[in-house]
Amino acid sequence: MTHDHNAGPQGDTSGAPGVLALDIGGTKLAAGVVGADGRMWSFASCPTGVEDGPEAALRRLFELGEKVLADAGAAAGQLLGVGIGCGGPLDPYTGVLIGPPHLTGWTDIPVTDLAGQRYGLPAVLDNDGTAGAAGEWRFGAGRGCRTLLYLTVSTGIGGGVVLDGRTYRGGAGNGGEPGHITVRSGGRRCRSCGRQGCLEAYASGTSIAERAVEAVAAARARGTATVLDRPGPLTAEDVDAAAQQGDPVATQVWTETVDTLGSGLTSLVNVFEPELVVLGGGVTRSGDRLLEPVRRLVAAQAMGPAARTARIVVASGGDAAGVLGAAAIGLERLADA
Amino acid sequence: MTHDHNAGPQGDTSGAPGVLALDIGGTKLAAGVVGADGRMWSFASCPTGVEDGPEAALRRLFELGEKVLADAGAAAGQLLGVGIGCGGPLDPYTGVLIGPPHLTGWTDIPVTDLAGQRYGLPAVLDNDGTAGAAGEWRFGAGRGCRTLLYLTVSTGIGGGVVLDGRTYRGGAGNGGEPGHITVRSGGRRCRSCGRQGCLEAYASGTSIAERAVEAVAAARARGTATVLDRPGPLTAEDVDAAAQQGDPVATQVWTETVDTLGSGLTSLVNVFEPELVVLGGGVTRSGDRLLEPVRRLVAAQAMGPAARTARIVVASGGDAAGVLGAAAIGLERLADA
Repeated sequence: MTHDHNAGPQGDTSGAPGVLALDIGGTKLAAGVVGADGRMWSFASCPTGVEDGPEAALRRLFELGEKVLADAGAAAGQLLGVGIGCGGPLDPYTGVLIGPPHLTGWTDIPVTDLAGQRYGLPAVLDNDGTAGAAGEWRFGAGRGCRTLLYLTVSTGIGGGVVLDGRTYRGGAGNGGEPGHITVRSGGRRCRSCGRQGCLEAYASGTSIAERAVEAVAAARARGTATVLDRPGPLTAEDVDAAAQQGDPVATQVWTETVDTLGSGLTSLVNVFEPELVVLGGGVTRSGDRLLEPVRRLVAAQAMGPAARTARIVVASGGDAAGVLGAAAIGLERLADA
Repeated sequence: MTHDHNAGPQGDTSGAPGVLALDIGGTKLAAGVVGADGRMWSFASCPTGVEDGPEAALRRLFELGEKVLADAGAAAGQLLGVGIGCGGPLDPYTGVLIGPPHLTGWTDIPVTDLAGQRYGLPAVLDNDGTAGAAGEWRFGAGRGCRTLLYLTVSTGIGGGVVLDGRTYRGGAGNGGEPGHITVRSGGRRCRSCGRQGCLEAYASGTSIAERAVEAVAAARARGTATVLDRPGPLTAEDVDAAAQQGDPVATQVWTETVDTLGSGLTSLVNVFEPELVVLGGGVTRSGDRLLEPVRRLVAAQAMGPAARTARIVVASGGDAAGVLGAAAIGLERLADA
């Protein structure tokens, strides 16, 4: 009875064919040519322009793809095909975008068929959370591990998992939704799913900003001064910066963020017992100011020794995370095909 | 781009070798000889007698194994080996029981080595929640599905998952712990993991009984009559029966049980997007009185269409669930070996 605990490096892929990777976001489109070893031969991005409708945005996306193909040139060699990442709901098996809420008007778009026709290459589509998990596992912080939980803490909270060295897509292909577990029963209404008290309703960038606005109003009402009480919109970064300066109102909002993220991750590590938790997205720009207290909460509260000692790190993908994720799912699925 | 959504029947296994299956519980030991087709050639059980220590209990377990082997006789044919299920923490790769809390004094017991020597057959060990999931998938309510979440709602709440047709063991082999996700933030202290507000701290049989005792005391203090206010211990079944009669105190306890189970399952289906949720354990003897309102809550609250429509059913394993689970992991792992 033997078992290989380490999946090891994900194969010697130097010189193996790469993919064209396309990342469709609500505010930004990105494209790159990525080698099987994670080398990015070319990269470009532009605004999505959701207001122009899907046809115009897809035209921009495919032109971006042409551009990065031209930029990569012959150096990138033969390509396996096209990997596409986008927010769900989508069908990764038929390659159809069903109706992502951040892409108004994009209903039943057969994006892999369109990409296939445009580039003359096979194309695959996955949820961007699933793709992000695959990207961190193949190219990033999760190289060499068997079991990885990935969360992107951004406008909303998405994510995915790699389990026993396989990307998990969920029963219907939209991956798991780690942002939609309860952290505050009967708490704030979640804008995405409508339920009360979801992790996303507390620890997402949107929620941090909203809770900051509410905390400022409450502080003003009781005559408490706060540096957050100033004109203009508030962001998660503003809250973090003010909390660092010891501002009591910002500290309260930041502490609730840490507590809810720690609680949600504790539930998730209890369920998955992952070796590694990778956190990406804008909110993790705070780095260890966010992660250190979260790590302490998980270590103190999780169920078993393995769950308590799961490593929690910041994603390594950076601005190219979406493209690297799309490349990873392309490499995974097109190599299998 | 094709994908087989249905794993289909788990192979034509009629006539294929079976296994000796051993189930180690805190109150009961059970053994059976089970064919690859799920046919149970023989079955026997006896009290664990934890107070006698591990040596005496293991002697009873192995004698039970001898008995079912003799009872099955030649009809069962050649056996692949021995499958063993037990509560964790344990190491499924070395076959060692690390120190299950329900088996006082069982520390670092190399149970697969001992079973292997006793029977002259290879042996494998898994968490009983993992085994239960594998058993329902191979032989029970989950036949033919790709993605299954299994919870046993009993003294505590354990469980496991089969994802994309593979039993998931977690990063360190103790499977997930679906009972230890938050359903009531800042709520009741969980006896197993110490955190506040776990699903197990509300919907387990132990918690239902405890909450009933507390509700009776509160009712007495405010002069409210309840049929639960009588001598002797209370059980989950008492609460269910009294709630059915319209007793307001029992109804309150039962409603909290339904609400917390519905909330926990909503978080879990959001994370796993399973086709099927199988609920086993004593508390599910209430059947549709428990499941119908839980189904409604999940359908109303879960995130995506797939999560909202996950079927929720009672386990089919019955009293032999532990043995069928142990058989399933034996068949899975010993056939691979």
